[in-house]
Amino acid sequence: MSLRHFLSTQDWSREELDDLLVQAAAFKRERLGHALRGKSIALLFFNNSMRTRTSFELGAQQLGGLAIVLSPGRDAWPIEFDVGTVMDGEAEEHIAEVARVLSRYVDLIGVRAFPKFQDWNLDRQDRVLQGFARYATVPVINLETITHPCQELAHAMAMRERLGELRGRKYVLTWTYHPRALNTAVANSALLIATRMGMDVTLLCPTPEYVLDERYMEAARQNAAANGGALQVSHDIESAYRGAQVVYAKSWGALPYFGRWEQEKPIREASKHFIVDEAKMALTDHGLFSHCLPLRRNVKATDAVMDAPYCMAIDEAENRLHVQKAVMATLVAQH
Amino acid sequence: MSLRHFLSTQDWSREELDDLLVQAAAFKRERLGHALRGKSIALLFFNNSMRTRTSFELGAQQLGGLAIVLSPGRDAWPIEFDVGTVMDGEAEEHIAEVARVLSRYVDLIGVRAFPKFQDWNLDRQDRVLQGFARYATVPVINLETITHPCQELAHAMAMRERLGELRGRKYVLTWTYHPRALNTAVANSALLIATRMGMDVTLLCPTPEYVLDERYMEAARQNAAANGGALQVSHDIESAYRGAQVVYAKSWGALPYFGRWEQEKPIREASKHFIVDEAKMALTDHGLFSHCLPLRRNVKATDAVMDAPYCMAIDEAENRLHVQKAVMATLVAQH
Amino acid sequence: MSLRHFLSTQDWSREELDDLLVQAAAFKRERLGHALRGKSIALLFFNNSMRTRTSFELGAQQLGGLAIVLSPGRDAWPIEFDVGTVMDGEAEEHIAEVARVLSRYVDLIGVRAFPKFQDWNLDRQDRVLQGFARYATVPVINLETITHPCQELAHAMAMRERLGELRGRKYVLTWTYHPRALNTAVANSALLIATRMGMDVTLLCPTPEYVLDERYMEAARQNAAANGGALQVSHDIESAYRGAQVVYAKSWGALPYFGRWEQEKPIREASKHFIVDEAKMALTDHGLFSHCLPLRRNVKATDAVMDAPYCMAIDEAENRLHVQKAVMATLVAQH
Repeated sequence: MSLRHFLSTQDWSREELDDLLVQAAAFKRERLGHALRGKSIALLFFNNSMRTRTSFELGAQQLGGLAIVLSPGRDAWPIEFDVGTVMDGEAEEHIAEVARVLSRYVDLIGVRAFPKFQDWNLDRQDRVLQGFARYATVPVINLETITHPCQELAHAMAMRERLGELRGRKYVLTWTYHPRALNTAVANSALLIATRMGMDVTLLCPTPEYVLDERYMEAARQNAAANGGALQVSHDIESAYRGAQVVYAKSWGALPYFGRWEQEKPIREASKHFIVDEAKMALTDHGLFSHCLPLRRNVKATDAVMDAPYCMAIDEAENRLHVQKAVMATLVAQH
Repeated sequence: MSLRHFLSTQDWSREELDDLLVQAAAFKRERLGHALRGKSIALLFFNNSMRTRTSFELGAQQLGGLAIVLSPGRDAWPIEFDVGTVMDGEAEEHIAEVARVLSRYVDLIGVRAFPKFQDWNLDRQDRVLQGFARYATVPVINLETITHPCQELAHAMAMRERLGELRGRKYVLTWTYHPRALNTAVANSALLIATRMGMDVTLLCPTPEYVLDERYMEAARQNAAANGGALQVSHDIESAYRGAQVVYAKSWGALPYFGRWEQEKPIREASKHFIVDEAKMALTDHGLFSHCLPLRRNVKATDAVMDAPYCMAIDEAENRLHVQKAVMATLVAQH
Repeated sequence: MSLRHFLSTQDWSREELDDLLVQAAAFKRERLGHALRGKSIALLFFNNSMRTRTSFELGAQQLGGLAIVLSPGRDAWPIEFDVGTVMDGEAEEHIAEVARVLSRYVDLIGVRAFPKFQDWNLDRQDRVLQGFARYATVPVINLETITHPCQELAHAMAMRERLGELRGRKYVLTWTYHPRALNTAVANSALLIATRMGMDVTLLCPTPEYVLDERYMEAARQNAAANGGALQVSHDIESAYRGAQVVYAKSWGALPYFGRWEQEKPIREASKHFIVDEAKMALTDHGLFSHCLPLRRNVKATDAVMDAPYCMAIDEAENRLHVQKAVMATLVAQH
């Protein structure tokens, strides 16, 4: 049997994802356990983290395991990911050695590696994560690269806690303003998981240039077809919000402007009105609101929305702990 | 019952403080225990730490708990503390979300956040710590902001180990030179705990401008009145040291010069003779010496003083471990 | 009985080293144990680390202990190592206090501190490590300073796993090119351990200027004499490789050029052909290859060598975990 990773929810069947969510609910009721007794996970952060790091460290330890946090390039050595390179640049070691050595030490490897935002054709190869998956001999977990599957599970769990069955529910993923062009990972992931759950999904964004990578659009269409849902794109705020049962917000940079962000800036600056506020939420059908966090208040969403009872962002963040324990326990049990 | 934090010793009764010290002594005799079994603490360091971090990490784990160390702005996201702000600056998330999410993950939150040293009227609001205390739904512990209550307990414990009953003992808090203007936190705390213990306290400093914030001076006067002690200010080294039983040294910046430190520099530079040396210690009544550490040798105190048997700085540093276990265990038991 | 440290393998008898390797093999078979139950180690990294940090953190915890990672000057205070200094520079505290306080908290202290590469006469004093050893009241472990004894044990263990008895085996330590002048620590250590094991050792390097410090050359000669081995220096690649059973590669800066590295650069740049490749390995007697990692592929050794079955670098890296557990367990048992 080949090595099982958790790189994308698309690699896991709907039944397997449902099973992870059931396990997560059990971990939410009883935090302590033995599923990782004597096991360990290395958490490699090429980028900042608060929730991910805290929830993985705690989750591993609450199940009897150990977590080691490493920040390559800051407190560990910078790493080369290309094959066959003459390594006379910055990188002091190759992913082949890093992944193989870590695999001797630990039972799981988690990797956070954001895009470089210069060339989407390069970033979309997800070379850091794929490099670990290629060379590691233990399961690898995506801690957010160009998708964020742990967030997907936490998001689905939070929606189910409030709505029960998700099939057919009207779901809006809305772009929001942020002063910088951000990663599309959570946006890609939102489309993937909402369509996987059979929801009626609308991607709301300022212009066609903000539509996500065709790889994820196509996967979302197939998910919708297979699970009884739908996917449409809208640039009209009012019609998109109307009747929505879930509004999920995220800011991201437009793919055609990768590496020349100054040219995207005017469109971005002209779209500050995409902020999620009470007036927009009033158009929904008692809609829930969420966001993956971190969130800039009064830029992406207003204080009133963030502090409203319909905001489930804190629940979703909490669920990171529970779903990740399910992922770790499942991978260790299968390995 | 409202949520109990450990932000200042002033919020705890004398009986409660004495009880913490009794518990700490028990933890000093037997390091391992179960008081935090399955519990966890997030330790947020907005500033450097060696003793605080080590002693809290160890202390939590020795009692069966877990400690997660986070450095916001370095390995976690920068945080906004103001209410109602349009967050279009550096901060990527708001204290409301940080505190609420961490409260879902952990059972205790520790916060170190030094003043910014530009505007004392702002710094004295202690907004980072107060922000956590406002939004967290678990107890918050002050790891040094504008006071340092954990150091107070460790200091009181060290004095009691050597002197027994502290009431009426002659205590001198002496300003010392340091090349930079430092935080007043430990100085404020020294006044608070020494007067709380009913000691006869002298604040020795170069000029009236180095007297501490009236908030702490007034609290110290009230403490002295309530506990049979006294508080006076002196600028005369010889008379202040004469007959002292405890000399506690600390450097700090003069409050009137906040934000214009270049103007304070001449006074500071003219006061290097406040260094604690053997000649001054010879004026005391077999006086003990201590300092919270880190200490610049031969700047704040001489090698001879630091290496003397009457120096209890290492004992005090060790006691951090024991008193903090008492604080964590008490807060978890009450929560 | 005086305090026992693990600063250099030269301070430990051959029987003691063999015993550590036997213990390490047992830890390789059974990772979990209780030898450090309730004990703790502080790991101080003045320089980057991946393997060392991960293997020590995991190793301590797998034996029931706790590990605290500190990076002085980054997340802890910068430290003074000279005695008698007036500390009015960068350092905020003295090694005397750091070592004494940590000794109150933990049961073991590990220290990584690379040379400064400006003045070898200064660097060869190894003041950071020796400072900890002088002031600590618990055992101190060298995590790589100007030697790397933990790597030595891991290297010896890997060679024994493949070759059995090492006495008389032909061993080549070859210098290799690296864009920067690196630490001699692992090279010094390779000479020490290979001669200690009675191997027939050749130091292969571009010119006499790359011969290592006479302190280590002399120790290696004495080791060879006492253990039935030999030590010679060669600048001829072909004759050195011919018949070798182990090839160990490392890059380092030539000692006469310390602090004026620009003048060494031409020699270095003219010696890129020292790269370990298949042609050179074909000269050996079914030779094994290893390196301490991190390694720049196609600069120090080719992809083909790194991926060959005779490459034992990954095994050696894994063994770090096992030998370090043996060192920690032995030091704690003796203390």
